[in-house]
Amino acid sequence: MKILVVNGPNLNLLGTREPEVYGTLTLEKINAELEILAKELGVELEFFQSNVEGEIVNAIQAARGVCSGIVINPAAYTHTSVAIRDAISAVSLPAVEIHISNVHAREEFRKNSLIAPVCVGQIAGFGLNSYRLGLRAIFDILNG
Amino acid sequence: MKILVVNGPNLNLLGTREPEVYGTLTLEKINAELEILAKELGVELEFFQSNVEGEIVNAIQAARGVCSGIVINPAAYTHTSVAIRDAISAVSLPAVEIHISNVHAREEFRKNSLIAPVCVGQIAGFGLNSYRLGLRAIFDILNG
Amino acid sequence: MKILVVNGPNLNLLGTREPEVYGTLTLEKINAELEILAKELGVELEFFQSNVEGEIVNAIQAARGVCSGIVINPAAYTHTSVAIRDAISAVSLPAVEIHISNVHAREEFRKNSLIAPVCVGQIAGFGLNSYRLGLRAIFDILNG
Amino acid sequence: MKILVVNGPNLNLLGTREPEVYGTLTLEKINAELEILAKELGVELEFFQSNVEGEIVNAIQAARGVCSGIVINPAAYTHTSVAIRDAISAVSLPAVEIHISNVHAREEFRKNSLIAPVCVGQIAGFGLNSYRLGLRAIFDILNG
Amino acid sequence: MKILVVNGPNLNLLGTREPEVYGTLTLEKINAELEILAKELGVELEFFQSNVEGEIVNAIQAARGVCSGIVINPAAYTHTSVAIRDAISAVSLPAVEIHISNVHAREEFRKNSLIAPVCVGQIAGFGLNSYRLGLRAIFDILNG
Amino acid sequence: MKILVVNGPNLNLLGTREPEVYGTLTLEKINAELEILAKELGVELEFFQSNVEGEIVNAIQAARGVCSGIVINPAAYTHTSVAIRDAISAVSLPAVEIHISNVHAREEFRKNSLIAPVCVGQIAGFGLNSYRLGLRAIFDILNG
Amino acid sequence: MKILVVNGPNLNLLGTREPEVYGTLTLEKINAELEILAKELGVELEFFQSNVEGEIVNAIQAARGVCSGIVINPAAYTHTSVAIRDAISAVSLPAVEIHISNVHAREEFRKNSLIAPVCVGQIAGFGLNSYRLGLRAIFDILNG
Amino acid sequence: MKILVVNGPNLNLLGTREPEVYGTLTLEKINAELEILAKELGVELEFFQSNVEGEIVNAIQAARGVCSGIVINPAAYTHTSVAIRDAISAVSLPAVEIHISNVHAREEFRKNSLIAPVCVGQIAGFGLNSYRLGLRAIFDILNG
Amino acid sequence: MKILVVNGPNLNLLGTREPEVYGTLTLEKINAELEILAKELGVELEFFQSNVEGEIVNAIQAARGVCSGIVINPAAYTHTSVAIRDAISAVSLPAVEIHISNVHAREEFRKNSLIAPVCVGQIAGFGLNSYRLGLRAIFDILNG
Amino acid sequence: MKILVVNGPNLNLLGTREPEVYGTLTLEKINAELEILAKELGVELEFFQSNVEGEIVNAIQAARGVCSGIVINPAAYTHTSVAIRDAISAVSLPAVEIHISNVHAREEFRKNSLIAPVCVGQIAGFGLNSYRLGLRAIFDILNG
Amino acid sequence: MKILVVNGPNLNLLGTREPEVYGTLTLEKINAELEILAKELGVELEFFQSNVEGEIVNAIQAARGVCSGIVINPAAYTHTSVAIRDAISAVSLPAVEIHISNVHAREEFRKNSLIAPVCVGQIAGFGLNSYRLGLRAIFDILNG
Amino acid sequence: MKILVVNGPNLNLLGTREPEVYGTLTLEKINAELEILAKELGVELEFFQSNVEGEIVNAIQAARGVCSGIVINPAAYTHTSVAIRDAISAVSLPAVEIHISNVHAREEFRKNSLIAPVCVGQIAGFGLNSYRLGLRAIFDILNG
Repeated sequence: MKILVVNGPNLNLLGTREPEVYGTLTLEKINAELEILAKELGVELEFFQSNVEGEIVNAIQAARGVCSGIVINPAAYTHTSVAIRDAISAVSLPAVEIHISNVHAREEFRKNSLIAPVCVGQIAGFGLNSYRLGLRAIFDILNG
Repeated sequence: MKILVVNGPNLNLLGTREPEVYGTLTLEKINAELEILAKELGVELEFFQSNVEGEIVNAIQAARGVCSGIVINPAAYTHTSVAIRDAISAVSLPAVEIHISNVHAREEFRKNSLIAPVCVGQIAGFGLNSYRLGLRAIFDILNG
Repeated sequence: MKILVVNGPNLNLLGTREPEVYGTLTLEKINAELEILAKELGVELEFFQSNVEGEIVNAIQAARGVCSGIVINPAAYTHTSVAIRDAISAVSLPAVEIHISNVHAREEFRKNSLIAPVCVGQIAGFGLNSYRLGLRAIFDILNG
Repeated sequence: MKILVVNGPNLNLLGTREPEVYGTLTLEKINAELEILAKELGVELEFFQSNVEGEIVNAIQAARGVCSGIVINPAAYTHTSVAIRDAISAVSLPAVEIHISNVHAREEFRKNSLIAPVCVGQIAGFGLNSYRLGLRAIFDILNG
Repeated sequence: MKILVVNGPNLNLLGTREPEVYGTLTLEKINAELEILAKELGVELEFFQSNVEGEIVNAIQAARGVCSGIVINPAAYTHTSVAIRDAISAVSLPAVEIHISNVHAREEFRKNSLIAPVCVGQIAGFGLNSYRLGLRAIFDILNG
Repeated sequence: MKILVVNGPNLNLLGTREPEVYGTLTLEKINAELEILAKELGVELEFFQSNVEGEIVNAIQAARGVCSGIVINPAAYTHTSVAIRDAISAVSLPAVEIHISNVHAREEFRKNSLIAPVCVGQIAGFGLNSYRLGLRAIFDILNG
Repeated sequence: MKILVVNGPNLNLLGTREPEVYGTLTLEKINAELEILAKELGVELEFFQSNVEGEIVNAIQAARGVCSGIVINPAAYTHTSVAIRDAISAVSLPAVEIHISNVHAREEFRKNSLIAPVCVGQIAGFGLNSYRLGLRAIFDILNG
Repeated sequence: MKILVVNGPNLNLLGTREPEVYGTLTLEKINAELEILAKELGVELEFFQSNVEGEIVNAIQAARGVCSGIVINPAAYTHTSVAIRDAISAVSLPAVEIHISNVHAREEFRKNSLIAPVCVGQIAGFGLNSYRLGLRAIFDILNG
Repeated sequence: MKILVVNGPNLNLLGTREPEVYGTLTLEKINAELEILAKELGVELEFFQSNVEGEIVNAIQAARGVCSGIVINPAAYTHTSVAIRDAISAVSLPAVEIHISNVHAREEFRKNSLIAPVCVGQIAGFGLNSYRLGLRAIFDILNG
Repeated sequence: MKILVVNGPNLNLLGTREPEVYGTLTLEKINAELEILAKELGVELEFFQSNVEGEIVNAIQAARGVCSGIVINPAAYTHTSVAIRDAISAVSLPAVEIHISNVHAREEFRKNSLIAPVCVGQIAGFGLNSYRLGLRAIFDILNG
Repeated sequence: MKILVVNGPNLNLLGTREPEVYGTLTLEKINAELEILAKELGVELEFFQSNVEGEIVNAIQAARGVCSGIVINPAAYTHTSVAIRDAISAVSLPAVEIHISNVHAREEFRKNSLIAPVCVGQIAGFGLNSYRLGLRAIFDILNG
Repeated sequence: MKILVVNGPNLNLLGTREPEVYGTLTLEKINAELEILAKELGVELEFFQSNVEGEIVNAIQAARGVCSGIVINPAAYTHTSVAIRDAISAVSLPAVEIHISNVHAREEFRKNSLIAPVCVGQIAGFGLNSYRLGLRAIFDILNG
């Protein structure tokens, strides 16, 4: 069982960007921690990060036949990308949307997600832990 | 460490109500499963369910000095209760809002949560697992 | 065949409250008149009134396995209660929403009903007669 | 006592049009059933159906001095006709708006009625029975 | 195979009305050109134009059992007629909505079509050619 | 110089309909008074009233080449008819929209006119005098 | 009988400002023409123009006991001044709102008038003639 | 003369809840201070606090025939309770809505009060003093 | 301690303007009554009334260093003046907004105050008493 | 004469993605079919597909001086891309927007096109045939 | 070449008002700095500040024939004054709107400018430098 | 001191695209002119243009530690890109948003900028000069 972990725009700056909002862990650190949990659960992870909307679409498409599920932090594209929404619908893989910060407690426009309606569910607000919870969630979905 | 687990209106019918949306587990079953995870994590749980908005306010208030955190599925009151929102703010306990179904994929009015902005975060769409993920989330918050 | 007749907040004041809007009949009088029609139709009635949203939820839940249908005047909760809406969905009993006054001809916020979409239909504007028409409506639904 | 029964656009197709929404009874059948109830109540009925908004206006105007009340299913014109609304206001006859389907549970635009605010009340969702309930309602209004 | 070609209000003035928006071809000329394409495709056409919303409803209803599909330019009624929308739903014939001008590039209120959601599709902006494209479209639909 | 005077739905009831809003003069009386002013100004009048939107479109179309200008009280169609709007645009005759009552001081939906933007101007609120002012206005427009 | 003629901001520039919208007549010319009509009708006029909202309020207040009616072109303050609205309500003098241009055919924000609901009526779109029609209108109102 | 003083949800926590917003006085302290002013004014007070919307409705109903006026701080229910609004209308007692914090300077949803339109007036923003000002206000109303 | 009492547009007409809304007391009478209370409280008052928005801005600016607080009835400017809002912010004096009528129970546009968010609080609906309550409120604020 | 055929995000998955919405033809098949029609019409086609918004902008820019017109299915970018809109405006080539599904009958957000206002027209709902109709449309535009 | 520099309400308090938003420079200081740049550019400046909307209208009107361009900081009137907008349109002088603070990053209502659409452009957010940039901008416009 | 100058989609076409809106200068020309000013000010410039949103995000990220400030014309992405907004926030470099045309005077959707709230300020409407003014602005910001 392989899970695609997608990180959207500016998440490559994690740990250095607005630490009061996003914490001080780098994306590499987060991925390393996720690998530990993945090992524990017995799943394989594939990481992908891009600032380009269309490349995220490409990565999701490429997961067909390769991965069993998706954990995605669409970041800024959460609120603007119909293309990523359609990609998730198109590949018919279960997906979990996660956010580091509590998007429901920030600017009004961050409350609406174009992606969440085509995911199994959404997890927001738990920092690095959002990723781990997302991995557990997708793991349980894939195990019925 | 004690966690208050609050269930809002109609969740006492779980397992018998619209199983295609909410699954077939009863609330008792869910609580039993949560107890297992709680034991594993080394935390104590206190369960509360009510159909009355004000009694949920009472229960949250009563948790001050007794519990360290809250896992709440406000159900219908998610979208209409400023009183529960204010109660959570008032007691200054970290809270995690959870939903069994993916509220972002249902009627328009279910997308907006009055409660989430005063919680640490929100978890929605994972069935019974939403409760377990919520318990893990609050556990990690309380452990810093 | 037993029908639950639910009256929402402030309807206990009927006959004394704003008679130019709600008429001069008390709720007892209305219930008595309904009993006459019920006898005529050969159905049993169970009356419930509360000012507490959650108690109305309780009453609707309690009707499962006991009543065959519901006539409900949700009054003020018509416009604010997702909890009552969810309760009616949850018990899977046919329900008829009735209103004494013509809610479509009053303040803008009284036009929208959160309850009506989960009922079989809505009857509004006929004073006491709204109850009798509602009873006839639910009777005919239950008789196919 | 004579009652005008007005049916708006496409109701002449009843029984053949979208039977899952509107049932399988033809308008003639409905009228025949209404005649039975009318006889029982001791009132006379006058039937009018048209697909033309202005002809419905004409029919309502023609009822002045001839009929004592109106039962109207404005169908599609419910949501778009200020002209029918003004006609009902102008003739000063009590009117009851009825709908076969539960308009509150369909497309958003079907929830708003331009006609209901100038009627005594509205009955919606009870199939053929909506007509019968409407006839009873207008009968009771005319009998004080 | 017979196709009903419906033209809504003011299209009888084509060729003389605002030629910079609608071109200089008269409706007769357009119909003649359509006949040529119809002959080529081997289909029969029936033309109907009216300025009266209800007469267009009548014409659509009359097409049941007579025509296999509809090409309709509802003109002004595109934006205001629930009655025509319901008529198309009621007769269960495939319909293609066409517009001479690009309605998406004009006044805001011309962007919304009440008719398009019950049609197979919409073609807008190609002048006379919109009719020819509409005829081809309905022809291909009917030929599977 | 000939002026078309168009009256929309329910204005045939003038003098009998809601006299506190529309006054006690009948349409015949109004027309007679207008004839007096017309004679004084040296213009000819042609009167048209209909409750049918499409017939008003027909009448406006028929005025091309016959009349030099239009005075129109679209009544209820003011707020709902794109078809009459398009007809006035199509015939390219100067038109003056008039209203007996002050539409800006009534229900919210009566404030918006779909017709006024294609007229030279609008006159509202002066009772019968609105017609006379409208006639003077169109007369002056036609006289440059 | 004395009529106050109020002109709002920038109307002192008439004849020089955007002549394609407002014509080439100066305010002095307009006033002179109005004097001719006033003499003909046997009424006296008092002219007031200001660019200051509060001075217009002052002028309206000062008309109490001095003038019998008001013709007002509030210009830009039409859309923003509750103060002028309240002043007209306060002095209880009949007022006619006039506009040189057709405000219903310009920017969206010019369609809404805060003043018109407290006037007898509104006249818009007839250039200089709007003033003359307004004077006739107020004259007829004052003569019953 | 007896005045009902109603406190809504979470106000029982006053003095301990968000002191930077609500101050450090407990409800008991506030009530004691109010008693002092009441004695000075020569009125009797009856205190009621509940977190349950329907119990507040009950308390307001119970005030009929017992109290002469109401001072109410509806707290969270200010923005969501049609039931409390209807209760105040129903008992026909003059009521004064008060708020400790300046609701007009907080979250957007706190600006709108469903209760204020059925009260004599609203006082907001003066901390404990809002209660005292409210008591003075109702006292003066009752003394004409 | 000196308090500036500001009255906005049309309040100079108090006692003569719409007495059913604003009562029969003149502004002079109100000021005289306020002086009595001021003497009792031991504060000095400075009165200012203007119909000109900018002069009210001037008066507020002039209060810096002279007055300790402001009681302001902005009247019509409540809903339209960002300039008065900015003036109050700029002078950094505590201000209390008051209204004679209950603005929350009148036209929709009177519910929103641009001024209240920069004041300490708002008092509305108590007639002349609103001024007295406002004076008490500012007095208590200044006395901590 | 050369036509650029642009396909937006996820259309590379055609034939495999949600076949009940988009049919079972692959993009290669569609292109092959288009080539047949192109040959028939005597035009050359250039195909471009990308999931990256900016690459679609690049492709449109590159068409200047090379192609005479554009057929574009912007897919998800229809509703979000001002950049593609501006690119079409910038190159001043006639463009036809096409959609496989009937966007007017799907989610609300799919009804609005940012691209259509800068195209000659829009064709939606005809499956593969939308492409063929689009090619015919652009062909006729280019042939005047 | 002479440039009118207009400052709107409360800008006379610059340097003393909310220095964390507006800086500590007085308007006199700003004007002195602008004079230095003006001299450098070889243009003459005329300064005008008022808190009265109508006086700003007067000043803009007075600039016709005297000044060649306008630099205006409309402050609070940016968001509420159609009168200033119309004045700028009327005088047909090129104008540059400037703001000291970044209006796009403050309260929602400060984002919308009624003035900017009739200016050449807008400069916001650069403190005192906004004035200098505005002067450079108008200088370059006037020099083609 | 090095400044990043970012140009968004379609700006590579400057000089050839809609010259009546954007002028006839090419981007190269603009850059050359900017270099002249940069030399004068003693700063170094780095130019970046892309039609791909994500590449602009990349370029902004890459500026950290290399450049001291950003001048950005986000073009179409101004209104749709949360990703670029987040990138600017993330790198914590002062940025100035500039636009060639007056975005406040064009289509409604061009008035709103997602980018401006995270910039120091915005400059719009001055053609090529917007770039020069933007460079001066960032220069002054960096020089305190």
